[in-house]
Amino acid sequence: MRATVLHAPGDVRVEEVEDPEITTPTDAVIRVTATCVCGSDLWPYRGIDPVADPVPMGHEYVGIVEEIGSEVVSIKPGQYVVGSFVASCGICEICRSGYPSSCANRVFMAQVGTQSERALIPHADGTLVPLPGAPDADLIPSLLAASDVLGTGWFGAVAAEAGPGKTVAVVGDGAVGLLAVLAAQQLGADRIIAMSRHESRQKLAREFGATDIVTERGDDGVARIKELTGGMGAHSVVEAVGTQESMQQAIRSTRPGGHMGFVGVNHDVALSGEELFFSQVHVVGGPAPVRRFLPELIDLIWQRKINPGKVFDLTLPLDQAAEAYQAMDERRAIKALLTF
Amino acid sequence: MRATVLHAPGDVRVEEVEDPEITTPTDAVIRVTATCVCGSDLWPYRGIDPVADPVPMGHEYVGIVEEIGSEVVSIKPGQYVVGSFVASCGICEICRSGYPSSCANRVFMAQVGTQSERALIPHADGTLVPLPGAPDADLIPSLLAASDVLGTGWFGAVAAEAGPGKTVAVVGDGAVGLLAVLAAQQLGADRIIAMSRHESRQKLAREFGATDIVTERGDDGVARIKELTGGMGAHSVVEAVGTQESMQQAIRSTRPGGHMGFVGVNHDVALSGEELFFSQVHVVGGPAPVRRFLPELIDLIWQRKINPGKVFDLTLPLDQAAEAYQAMDERRAIKALLTF
Repeated sequence: MRATVLHAPGDVRVEEVEDPEITTPTDAVIRVTATCVCGSDLWPYRGIDPVADPVPMGHEYVGIVEEIGSEVVSIKPGQYVVGSFVASCGICEICRSGYPSSCANRVFMAQVGTQSERALIPHADGTLVPLPGAPDADLIPSLLAASDVLGTGWFGAVAAEAGPGKTVAVVGDGAVGLLAVLAAQQLGADRIIAMSRHESRQKLAREFGATDIVTERGDDGVARIKELTGGMGAHSVVEAVGTQESMQQAIRSTRPGGHMGFVGVNHDVALSGEELFFSQVHVVGGPAPVRRFLPELIDLIWQRKINPGKVFDLTLPLDQAAEAYQAMDERRAIKALLTF
Repeated sequence: MRATVLHAPGDVRVEEVEDPEITTPTDAVIRVTATCVCGSDLWPYRGIDPVADPVPMGHEYVGIVEEIGSEVVSIKPGQYVVGSFVASCGICEICRSGYPSSCANRVFMAQVGTQSERALIPHADGTLVPLPGAPDADLIPSLLAASDVLGTGWFGAVAAEAGPGKTVAVVGDGAVGLLAVLAAQQLGADRIIAMSRHESRQKLAREFGATDIVTERGDDGVARIKELTGGMGAHSVVEAVGTQESMQQAIRSTRPGGHMGFVGVNHDVALSGEELFFSQVHVVGGPAPVRRFLPELIDLIWQRKINPGKVFDLTLPLDQAAEAYQAMDERRAIKALLTF
């Protein structure tokens, strides 16, 4: 089959690889009908995460089940499915408590790769959610977004306790940040402040429910959030970047007793314990437990109540994956969808 | 009046100072009937927090109201009162949301000093809670504990979401850690693991409700907690020390999706964003919003349902404050009460 492989920083190729095979009775193999490039794929692409050997890429997917292992009971060949970017068993104590992305038996799909014609899905029963039927073509981008960026933005908003009566600020205007805006709107937040300096992203943030745009960053961004919130800071802040500056900006933008959900994969971040102590901000983050939210998100998409697929502003055939990476790396595209 | 003053690291003196005077119509002056030395008083005593000029010491107090400002309405002269170590207005948005220790108008009582015959209490209406009457002598230590260490341990347990069905681990066996054990027990935790290497403190931890004692520290301590919790880590961890090692120990002892409440004042702590991200632990800390819990805590003490005053294992007259500091510094005493 054809698959996207990263050979070295900046060197993404689509090439022939072995078809995936079921090796564990809880595995499934799906035919991928849509996949995409994630902001986190850019870390190894940019060489910030080291690339030793050629590695398969991708962790987001919509597909059709082709084959199941002998112990898979809730998924059948022929079903259309969506799953999280983390395969999870669904039965361990951590899964059952709502944190499947920290499942005791988890497999990061990024280690398997899904930017390919087929994909092996470990823990198929725990991981995959069947769709109500064959999806209309216009729903595919949104369903694909549910696999990671929508679910991740949603977790950020839930972790930040966005909801009625709350002012929510979102740090980061990538797909995850924009979808955290959408999530905050769905969760009933009163006021949603998107922090963005890019006109096209500001526009999408407004479409998704942002009531205010803040273009300043760092200390100036914090000062602006304080100004908009009676000097207090936002009740809820979602961090969707993962740098030292953005983490500090997020913590400092949150009022004491407020909540900060961080979903940007942290790189070289050191948080001052003193600052965190005196901030009195509730902080939680990590790889989003997308699987927890998938049934609800699929339902909202299926009923056309939300349209998270709008974050895809570039669609290319799989063979042009290299261009998709480049466009995202250069911020010419928010997010690139790959078709078959 | 006589007051405890720190002149330089290690140099605590009880000397004559000016009586406090009401300067703001929301102030009150109390006659202090009991005060004590806090673990956090040891930071400047040890020179870890710098000491520039002679500073008044102490922030815990039980007393009798002597005088009130013209705008004080809920407190009357002659009443017995307890208040938090942070004076708070009680009416700002942050106070009303349950975080009076981050009150927009807060005054840390440590800046005022309460190891003295009288003390000025800013924001008397917001800060002070009247007792039902004159307290019996045996209740004084417990009421004094409510002013900080009990309320702080309690907040740690609440922040860690201790409760039924939960395994709670407590890092730190000072007065706050021991009272976090008591709080976890009161909040209905199934299992409470106290981390302590000192026999007398282990004994008190058991009296307060600890079901397990772990003597290991650092990575070994984490491994032991994991061993006791099926490899997962505790649901709830209270951190009551404030060092790099203890903060890491607390985070690493918490299961993914679990909660870590940190109430040890952090000193020179840098938390890895990557580690916090992948831990997926909910973290919140800070100066405890003791005022939120005071009515409930006073009630429990008044009904003799809890006896937090047991953390005091040394009682000295105010004039011997220097010896009280020394005993705590050398860990000969858990906590020292000062009488008048």
